[in-house]
Amino acid sequence: MSRTVYVNGDYLPEEDAKISIFDRGFLMADAVYEVTSVLDGKLIDFDGHAVRLKRSLDELEMAEPCSKDELLAIHRKLVEENGIVEGLIYLQVTRGSDGDRDFVFPSEDTPPSIVLFTQNKPGLADNPAAKKGAKIISIEDIRWGRRDIKTVQLLYPSMGKMMAKKAGADDAWLVEDGYVTEGTSNNAYFVKDGVIVTRPLSNDILHGITRKAVLRMAAEAQLKIEERLFTVEEAQGADEAFTTSASAFVMPVVEIDGVSLGDGTPGPIATRLREIYLDESLKAAI
Amino acid sequence: MSRTVYVNGDYLPEEDAKISIFDRGFLMADAVYEVTSVLDGKLIDFDGHAVRLKRSLDELEMAEPCSKDELLAIHRKLVEENGIVEGLIYLQVTRGSDGDRDFVFPSEDTPPSIVLFTQNKPGLADNPAAKKGAKIISIEDIRWGRRDIKTVQLLYPSMGKMMAKKAGADDAWLVEDGYVTEGTSNNAYFVKDGVIVTRPLSNDILHGITRKAVLRMAAEAQLKIEERLFTVEEAQGADEAFTTSASAFVMPVVEIDGVSLGDGTPGPIATRLREIYLDESLKAAI
Repeated sequence: MSRTVYVNGDYLPEEDAKISIFDRGFLMADAVYEVTSVLDGKLIDFDGHAVRLKRSLDELEMAEPCSKDELLAIHRKLVEENGIVEGLIYLQVTRGSDGDRDFVFPSEDTPPSIVLFTQNKPGLADNPAAKKGAKIISIEDIRWGRRDIKTVQLLYPSMGKMMAKKAGADDAWLVEDGYVTEGTSNNAYFVKDGVIVTRPLSNDILHGITRKAVLRMAAEAQLKIEERLFTVEEAQGADEAFTTSASAFVMPVVEIDGVSLGDGTPGPIATRLREIYLDESLKAAI
Repeated sequence: MSRTVYVNGDYLPEEDAKISIFDRGFLMADAVYEVTSVLDGKLIDFDGHAVRLKRSLDELEMAEPCSKDELLAIHRKLVEENGIVEGLIYLQVTRGSDGDRDFVFPSEDTPPSIVLFTQNKPGLADNPAAKKGAKIISIEDIRWGRRDIKTVQLLYPSMGKMMAKKAGADDAWLVEDGYVTEGTSNNAYFVKDGVIVTRPLSNDILHGITRKAVLRMAAEAQLKIEERLFTVEEAQGADEAFTTSASAFVMPVVEIDGVSLGDGTPGPIATRLREIYLDESLKAAI
């Protein structure tokens, strides 16, 4: 059955969901996005995503397409219309179009474009991949310098996933100036002697909504956290490792560049944090 | 009057020119482009653009949407239908869509999307801006590392043009590790004691079609050329400077970060190269 999607005020069958070729999201990657998970038919950390969306828009001097309440209503209507119990909602906002192509931004009264669609993912919480753990390769981080803004400039992360796939791995971690920045679509962590290590926030990495929640929950669980730079070699020598993202939650990492971590199965801290995160997030879901 | 544009095999009025919201050009900036100038109703260096398009596609393992002959026929039909005497033809090819969003590339039989449209620019050759010369500001180059591939990841170049505009300038030159890479949408040059200096080709800059032609013409005119790294300070101390691009040809630069070059008017070498380039290109136009 065809999905119902949302495009600039209209709920449409996905086949009819189109955007002008002059839209700056299409011509210039002048667009930002968010992905919110749905569990038990409810939205996980909607507020966190709405706040980050606002930040991305502000950083790019882009207008808000609608209020937070309207955004919530669209999310809920799409979940209902498409009968999503477990899955994702993708949201993209672009600077819109004044009907032609120009590097100069269109006039400020040009309405932004907004697009949302759902992805049905039964078994998202009980993902078998999380029981197996992910194999990671490391690749050079050649993305632009403002990774804190969640733009659709995703060609390199996409290429990185393909490089991982070709190498028989599941995902890639990006390395800049010798230090891991983050995964292609997630934040990266390792655990050594009970201490969780992850890169501190800056323009170099995405300010993960799930990162924030998981670090809070880890602190509440009396786990030690160090936010600092780290290398691939250090992570390879760790007891365990994991990634966090809004759509994969906490994903254990069992191998980095061919080196098995611990006994090569998901570590206890990653496994516990995944359980805590899913449990707490479900309780707070709206 | 509405333009006729080309979208995936169809010639359409521009209002009807739309693309699926699932197209990877829209969702992931997984797309490359070319801009070809039209002078006297003819295409300038079509072959150079077709060759570079093929290179961009190959670098990204993206399929060709059609043959070079078909591409030429589409260009010509659009020029004719829209009565373009002087102007531009924009071409974009994306990895297409398999109807959903995924970082993993769609299967190889997924057809790429192809979009072309014209921009009518009467007076393009006799541009008054070229008689005045451009004022440049320098900004940090924070783009991704493969600028030799002509992708639509143009958010930062677009932001750069806006920064220039806000500073009362016309354009920005990008600086990485202390050296000028290129302009936001053009290659950068200065001239000192009769020697033309420009950055050598690498992954750091676009391999300009106009750069190649202008350097060839400069060599033919017995001008000395040095391809090497240079700083903003060095360019500020030059006799003159200029940029090259397919849509602005040779554009004299008269000011860099508030410092006037020479007597603050377009220099003789830039002016002469512009004339030679327009003259030769028109002769070779098809």
